[in-house]
Amino acid sequence: MNTQPKAAVIMGSDSDFPVVKKCITMLKKFGIEADVNVLSAHRTPEAAATYAKEAKANGIDVIIAAAGKAAHLAGVLAAHTTLPVIGIPMKSSTMDGLDSLLSVVQMPKGIPVATVAIDGADNAGILAAQMLALKYEEIAPRLAQFKADMEAEVLSKNEKIKQEAMAE
Amino acid sequence: MNTQPKAAVIMGSDSDFPVVKKCITMLKKFGIEADVNVLSAHRTPEAAATYAKEAKANGIDVIIAAAGKAAHLAGVLAAHTTLPVIGIPMKSSTMDGLDSLLSVVQMPKGIPVATVAIDGADNAGILAAQMLALKYEEIAPRLAQFKADMEAEVLSKNEKIKQEAMAE
Amino acid sequence: MNTQPKAAVIMGSDSDFPVVKKCITMLKKFGIEADVNVLSAHRTPEAAATYAKEAKANGIDVIIAAAGKAAHLAGVLAAHTTLPVIGIPMKSSTMDGLDSLLSVVQMPKGIPVATVAIDGADNAGILAAQMLALKYEEIAPRLAQFKADMEAEVLSKNEKIKQEAMAE
Amino acid sequence: MNTQPKAAVIMGSDSDFPVVKKCITMLKKFGIEADVNVLSAHRTPEAAATYAKEAKANGIDVIIAAAGKAAHLAGVLAAHTTLPVIGIPMKSSTMDGLDSLLSVVQMPKGIPVATVAIDGADNAGILAAQMLALKYEEIAPRLAQFKADMEAEVLSKNEKIKQEAMAE
Amino acid sequence: MNTQPKAAVIMGSDSDFPVVKKCITMLKKFGIEADVNVLSAHRTPEAAATYAKEAKANGIDVIIAAAGKAAHLAGVLAAHTTLPVIGIPMKSSTMDGLDSLLSVVQMPKGIPVATVAIDGADNAGILAAQMLALKYEEIAPRLAQFKADMEAEVLSKNEKIKQEAMAE
Amino acid sequence: MNTQPKAAVIMGSDSDFPVVKKCITMLKKFGIEADVNVLSAHRTPEAAATYAKEAKANGIDVIIAAAGKAAHLAGVLAAHTTLPVIGIPMKSSTMDGLDSLLSVVQMPKGIPVATVAIDGADNAGILAAQMLALKYEEIAPRLAQFKADMEAEVLSKNEKIKQEAMAE
Amino acid sequence: MNTQPKAAVIMGSDSDFPVVKKCITMLKKFGIEADVNVLSAHRTPEAAATYAKEAKANGIDVIIAAAGKAAHLAGVLAAHTTLPVIGIPMKSSTMDGLDSLLSVVQMPKGIPVATVAIDGADNAGILAAQMLALKYEEIAPRLAQFKADMEAEVLSKNEKIKQEAMAE
Amino acid sequence: MNTQPKAAVIMGSDSDFPVVKKCITMLKKFGIEADVNVLSAHRTPEAAATYAKEAKANGIDVIIAAAGKAAHLAGVLAAHTTLPVIGIPMKSSTMDGLDSLLSVVQMPKGIPVATVAIDGADNAGILAAQMLALKYEEIAPRLAQFKADMEAEVLSKNEKIKQEAMAE
Repeated sequence: MNTQPKAAVIMGSDSDFPVVKKCITMLKKFGIEADVNVLSAHRTPEAAATYAKEAKANGIDVIIAAAGKAAHLAGVLAAHTTLPVIGIPMKSSTMDGLDSLLSVVQMPKGIPVATVAIDGADNAGILAAQMLALKYEEIAPRLAQFKADMEAEVLSKNEKIKQEAMAE
Repeated sequence: MNTQPKAAVIMGSDSDFPVVKKCITMLKKFGIEADVNVLSAHRTPEAAATYAKEAKANGIDVIIAAAGKAAHLAGVLAAHTTLPVIGIPMKSSTMDGLDSLLSVVQMPKGIPVATVAIDGADNAGILAAQMLALKYEEIAPRLAQFKADMEAEVLSKNEKIKQEAMAE
Repeated sequence: MNTQPKAAVIMGSDSDFPVVKKCITMLKKFGIEADVNVLSAHRTPEAAATYAKEAKANGIDVIIAAAGKAAHLAGVLAAHTTLPVIGIPMKSSTMDGLDSLLSVVQMPKGIPVATVAIDGADNAGILAAQMLALKYEEIAPRLAQFKADMEAEVLSKNEKIKQEAMAE
Repeated sequence: MNTQPKAAVIMGSDSDFPVVKKCITMLKKFGIEADVNVLSAHRTPEAAATYAKEAKANGIDVIIAAAGKAAHLAGVLAAHTTLPVIGIPMKSSTMDGLDSLLSVVQMPKGIPVATVAIDGADNAGILAAQMLALKYEEIAPRLAQFKADMEAEVLSKNEKIKQEAMAE
Repeated sequence: MNTQPKAAVIMGSDSDFPVVKKCITMLKKFGIEADVNVLSAHRTPEAAATYAKEAKANGIDVIIAAAGKAAHLAGVLAAHTTLPVIGIPMKSSTMDGLDSLLSVVQMPKGIPVATVAIDGADNAGILAAQMLALKYEEIAPRLAQFKADMEAEVLSKNEKIKQEAMAE
Repeated sequence: MNTQPKAAVIMGSDSDFPVVKKCITMLKKFGIEADVNVLSAHRTPEAAATYAKEAKANGIDVIIAAAGKAAHLAGVLAAHTTLPVIGIPMKSSTMDGLDSLLSVVQMPKGIPVATVAIDGADNAGILAAQMLALKYEEIAPRLAQFKADMEAEVLSKNEKIKQEAMAE
Repeated sequence: MNTQPKAAVIMGSDSDFPVVKKCITMLKKFGIEADVNVLSAHRTPEAAATYAKEAKANGIDVIIAAAGKAAHLAGVLAAHTTLPVIGIPMKSSTMDGLDSLLSVVQMPKGIPVATVAIDGADNAGILAAQMLALKYEEIAPRLAQFKADMEAEVLSKNEKIKQEAMAE
Repeated sequence: MNTQPKAAVIMGSDSDFPVVKKCITMLKKFGIEADVNVLSAHRTPEAAATYAKEAKANGIDVIIAAAGKAAHLAGVLAAHTTLPVIGIPMKSSTMDGLDSLLSVVQMPKGIPVATVAIDGADNAGILAAQMLALKYEEIAPRLAQFKADMEAEVLSKNEKIKQEAMAE
């Protein structure tokens, strides 16, 4: 059993990196190591399958997969592991992300993919942290702090907008 | 830290029970205790918020929430906890489940919901088991066995269909 | 019973302000005070619930809530009050507003949200005025005047376009 | 100014009656008189326009309109009155109610329709009661009681399901 | 019975004019007089109804109506006349024109609207010409010529593209 | 120029007949002869093209085409004639008619199809009558009578529903 | 190089067999041997990958894959072979087949899947025959005959419907 | 039987050329001659039908057709030939390509179109190569090489992204 929290972050194409980066940032914020890779369910099926099959033995706790269009990556990885797999449906140039969303979330019985919002890379990182907090006790207080910070940020924005609204 | 794996299973309406039952069955198969409740984000908001806020202290490891239409239940629970929350979008009488799916999965930055397929109650249970296997080592081999059984079942169906096809 | 018409205008994120501003302008036009706040159903659930619970006692007559994506804000506020709640589904970066619309309008039995068009902030203000005219008699003639002005504006544009069309 | 709460309930076709009935029942529960009519935006445009124009003078406080497909009824009535208009998009034989929903909710600037869920006739009645409670003080406690009853009903169902779940 | 072909071209908002202009150009090409107006089903319902009711007596042969979002204009005009009504669903800022299309085309039994493509203003003009050719014999040869010209234009583009493709 | 009003009614498959029948009934009601055929854009392309090319010479005034799924029939007929072509998108076993609707209505510039609602066969017949009334003067009073009858029918249903509602 | 035409027919679940059968029937009609299997991209990923990798060596000319929901099967097979892969999106219990269609057709650059209509199993068989006719000359005349038979069948149905229509 | 691989590439409008070019490039990469044409199902129906009918005799092995909106081109060509027809649904200015996709893929029984992704011109070229490899043995190794190159390209991008991610 590994002793350092570690998440795999796999994207189907290097063009997904600008969005996926937000996931890596979030993982770091929670003290989770990220093993980042470009692997395609369709163009490098062997490498993708091998990665998923060996992930657990390689100390990976959770797999995050981002892909667009007929986005099979998360499902294909999930087929080869019993680790939890988080799927990020990427918006592509057509269909406004609906194709990606349905391809990721509508998994058949037996092989779930924990799907987040279209382009929801930050939430994928947070969800991974929530899962890892089950095992690594040091993550839970960081999540609590993150939640408190978010709340404070909204309340502070509230003050600012209230004044802007009054000034109108 | 609790020592027995325990999942909350919350449904927004008792009419969701026939589908949600499949999730409970799956949890039991993996040796996970289920705390089952009907709680509505809209009709019992206090009870829902309280449940989520106290879940961790009550030994809950993961929350599974099933709701339909403008399905806010999973998001509302996630707002009140740092535990991972799994959302099951329930198909309702109109819109073929698309309203439920979008209401569950399209969560804003900061509060993820791990969404499974429309009516995907079994997968919600399996996903919970995958998360809990991070903490409870006894679950991992059960997941491996489950995967092997599924594979064997498909291969056995394959033999049957091959013969049916030949007999045509 | 309060004696001055007063509407709460709540937005889920300060990024909604440019659109929501049109609602505030409209309320002012009808002589309705606006209590403007940024409150998130997911990031500040306590503050949102408290606001809704105390709204009536604080002299609020109607609540207007604007949110995008899995837009639970209006529904969550409606869960905590018997005041009428108007929901503005905000267009976000994906799904062209369909996710917001369905998350706001498809409320389950018992907790309605009076939904206006995607990004329909002005109409939310007008609808609030129509509701408040039931109680505050001075608003009705303003609504009648507004309707007459709109009609006159269209008829005047008609003259302009007729000439442009002829000049083609 | 009328002294008894009164809502108009208009449906585009008598085939909408079985669903619309739930709205009438809800209005009665809150002590609101219902003036029920079948009027079509397309087949009886004069009667519909006249009804809306005279509604306020006839003591109507709020108009509820139910229609399906290219559902123009609510919008057409709203064009002829400054009373608040609630729209119920009716599910029809094709498009699962999406056509009705978009035709009712996507009103242009100036003429709002307070839209409820597809086939959401009960919620239309409740929303009307919430609006009328602004003017008729006796309705507010009925709404509070209704909310309390709903909450109690869910909590009682919760007990029942908890036992069913345990018995599984 | 009028002796000069004449079409009404009504748009719901002057912002529709840049697209609607293509319809007017097309009508002129076929020798059809266009009576152009901005009239709103919601903001000037009386003027719209009156226009439709008097259209036939005023020598109008066919009505063309362009509107967006909850696009009731064509249907409302059709309710007040037995002349054929052509509807142009206008793309608006959300929903990519789907709301307009469904609001125009999904008319209930009894009141048809002859719907063309989203933003299909030229085709509305051509369709009007095809209808008017039933009555005005001089239009038919113009339509035949128009069809021949289109065909020639495509074939000439074909030659150009063939060469470009070869040059690649 | 033909002297008796005559419409072609073409369906893509004999399975469309039960719906298309309503169109034929409507045409008869208005005294329009119907030339009914099963012709497929895909299975009998030559026959379909020939029919459209010869329609005008054969005394046809308007063509009505009903087809489902990738419904090319109306567009293909329109390509071969300058007569107005009315398209009926037929609901099929998947996609709830959206595929048929988009395939019929979204015609490119130059070749319009006058599209009615999904399965809107009666309206196709009425629309044909409205077009033919431009040429055959005897049809106009029948349309006026039809409109008056519809109005009377709604008003009579109104009386019935009013009583049912009161009896509740 | 194999000398007998041979198609693989793979379905993701034995519940797809009733629809897939129509494909097998069609292949037989054209003299193509069918190697029928149940293989799941998610439940038997190894077996699916192995099948695709060895297909060409095993004398398979073309692969037909039927799957529903997040239908990855066709894409996964295509990832492991250079044979043409035909995808049949299967309608499932939610989303009316749209999820399956988008998951099959929206393949990223480099790995095409030749997609047919939702539940279009017969067409998958015919498409396979059209591809195989490139290599096996005996299939072309069978396709020509099939086309002629279809045409004759439509024309014969035309006669029948013409009479039914006249008898009305 | 022709001895050089040859594909027809037909587009419905010259405005499709920038996207279609990617298909031509791909065909060249695999040593397939492209006969490129602009032909419209609606504006040049005769030329399109003639092209399809004579394609086989003219040495064409496979037809690729690109069109948008109510995209009938591929289906119309398929109606006139027994060659395999590949359809490219082109994204147009409205509906984000959904109209094109459904118009191309939802073909009725008997006349399949092998549909690729919206704007998926490269994949249409690759799919054509996969089909032609059945007949022309020299293409198979080129496809294998192409697949190997793609795989190598992804793996090389993987190295690059891994470093970028570490540098963050």
